[in-house]
Amino acid sequence: MAQVKGLTLGQLGEFGLIQRAERIFGRPDRPGLVQGIGDDAAVVKIGHNKALIYTTDMLIEDVHFSLKYEGFSDIGWKALAVNISDIASMGATPTWGLISVGVPVGIPVDNVDKLAQGVASLAHKYHVGIIGGDTVKSPDRLVVNIALLGEATAKDILFRHGASPGDALFVTNRVGEAAAGLEILRDSRPVTRDSRLLIKRYLRPEPRVKESRLIVQHRLASSMIDISDGLHISVKLLCAQSKVGARVYLDKIPLNSQLATRNPQQALQWALSGGEDYELLFTVPKNKIRKALALFPYGWIGEITKDNSVKVLSPTGREVKVRKTGYEHFK
Amino acid sequence: MAQVKGLTLGQLGEFGLIQRAERIFGRPDRPGLVQGIGDDAAVVKIGHNKALIYTTDMLIEDVHFSLKYEGFSDIGWKALAVNISDIASMGATPTWGLISVGVPVGIPVDNVDKLAQGVASLAHKYHVGIIGGDTVKSPDRLVVNIALLGEATAKDILFRHGASPGDALFVTNRVGEAAAGLEILRDSRPVTRDSRLLIKRYLRPEPRVKESRLIVQHRLASSMIDISDGLHISVKLLCAQSKVGARVYLDKIPLNSQLATRNPQQALQWALSGGEDYELLFTVPKNKIRKALALFPYGWIGEITKDNSVKVLSPTGREVKVRKTGYEHFK
Repeated sequence: MAQVKGLTLGQLGEFGLIQRAERIFGRPDRPGLVQGIGDDAAVVKIGHNKALIYTTDMLIEDVHFSLKYEGFSDIGWKALAVNISDIASMGATPTWGLISVGVPVGIPVDNVDKLAQGVASLAHKYHVGIIGGDTVKSPDRLVVNIALLGEATAKDILFRHGASPGDALFVTNRVGEAAAGLEILRDSRPVTRDSRLLIKRYLRPEPRVKESRLIVQHRLASSMIDISDGLHISVKLLCAQSKVGARVYLDKIPLNSQLATRNPQQALQWALSGGEDYELLFTVPKNKIRKALALFPYGWIGEITKDNSVKVLSPTGREVKVRKTGYEHFK
Repeated sequence: MAQVKGLTLGQLGEFGLIQRAERIFGRPDRPGLVQGIGDDAAVVKIGHNKALIYTTDMLIEDVHFSLKYEGFSDIGWKALAVNISDIASMGATPTWGLISVGVPVGIPVDNVDKLAQGVASLAHKYHVGIIGGDTVKSPDRLVVNIALLGEATAKDILFRHGASPGDALFVTNRVGEAAAGLEILRDSRPVTRDSRLLIKRYLRPEPRVKESRLIVQHRLASSMIDISDGLHISVKLLCAQSKVGARVYLDKIPLNSQLATRNPQQALQWALSGGEDYELLFTVPKNKIRKALALFPYGWIGEITKDNSVKVLSPTGREVKVRKTGYEHFK
């Protein structure tokens, strides 16, 4: 204890903090829990074979978004998107949401309306009902928290654990585009036709609900996670929970072709560590790989191994050092 | 629209904001919704006669609490207590919670542990499982958001609507003590044996889960609300939703006897408008009043009337003007 006394969260990191939370909250004395702290969402059994999926995410001004280059409706959209992505990554369907907003006094009501409209437009698209919430005053910064429920047939749920050596590693779509979009916004570069897509990938991420349904319907996956914190860290998290390792092949990672042509190093860096891509990463047992390739032709990026290490390999087979392992809060 | 364009939230108030939210989010295109925006919690049907109750509350430093006189574990306790109170006020049992914390960088981990321990100790008491959440960086102020689920038999659920003229108006316990406790803390007065109870009522409110169970088991109530925002405003909200009025008798409001003896005016002001009392306010049909009085001997405070006005009456029958109608955010 004495060693830990002076520690700040910055030194501990988010993952150390989660371990502490697990210890403090402990195992609940209530039946029905399938998955608690430590996956993209919690899972509780309701009835025979149905399960409730339950997640929450908090976004704070100047940490997760900036009013300098993000509109209020973009912020609303993304606050819901990150939660829907967590539900989709469990193989579940989003259902009911609650929104809490901490609003700096003096903000025009029109802007709060726009934030709500951003939430509502994405909610409408995926048939999510926003059925309550809390609106409070904030001394200075805008805070948005959404809690989201989802539903699934119990046996369809996919966890971070479940991957086995020999499984293939897949992503649902191109990675690194959101980080490129953020850089364009940060640099206030002129928006071209090409950059508009990248900016949209950052501001209005599309949670992969349809892809998640496909993966579940075809029983493609043995495990799944969303890669919002970055591809590399997400592979590591999935492997840690599954007690396996992985090899990721650099030249197989699906990139935006223009970014890859202009600056391949940069494009790969964004893909591996940029974060904010709300794609799904999933593992596919051998007998399902053909089907997975038919549905996600550019999705195969590597394979699960027995040893516990995650290696990123260049086309010549050399191990590549990944500089920043994704976006970890507090570090 | 033009009229509204320049409005700030401070001018609109929380209740105006909720109406706008209802309009923007609309009726969800998903079956099962029993109660959306506009009560203490949302209600969704699951299965034949079971319902899911769903609520969330956000607490922000220097708005809802101050680190000057509240410990981290007190803040954790209260963050969960306010949510449990919302679930109890629907006649439901709390089950599963998620916690989001926005932590200023540099805060020692020990303090975050204490916050979690405050949550965990109340969770343990009411068999609530804290099964996930989100930990993020905050630029300066501590933010805590909890989302809480509850369960109930569908026919047992109590809403703000449902009160009828002739029903009696009850509270579960003394009111005004929390506001008195806050004043002692704010003034940094020396803590005496008498004031310790008042301070505890403010720092560690006890959500009325047992009382809620009693009310449901004996089918005592036609409507219910928690009075965290103040007794007077809560009577008004319940009456507005039930489309009725009420008479509240000043001399019937259960007060702390020492506060009432020392300064009756002040004690009543705290009771009517102080807020932070996590008691339940409920309406009792005539044929149940005897039973209600047996269970809550000091609970009867008035009656529901046909006209839409809420009147607070002195012992001589004069109408009393209540200065501040409870704690409304932004105003």
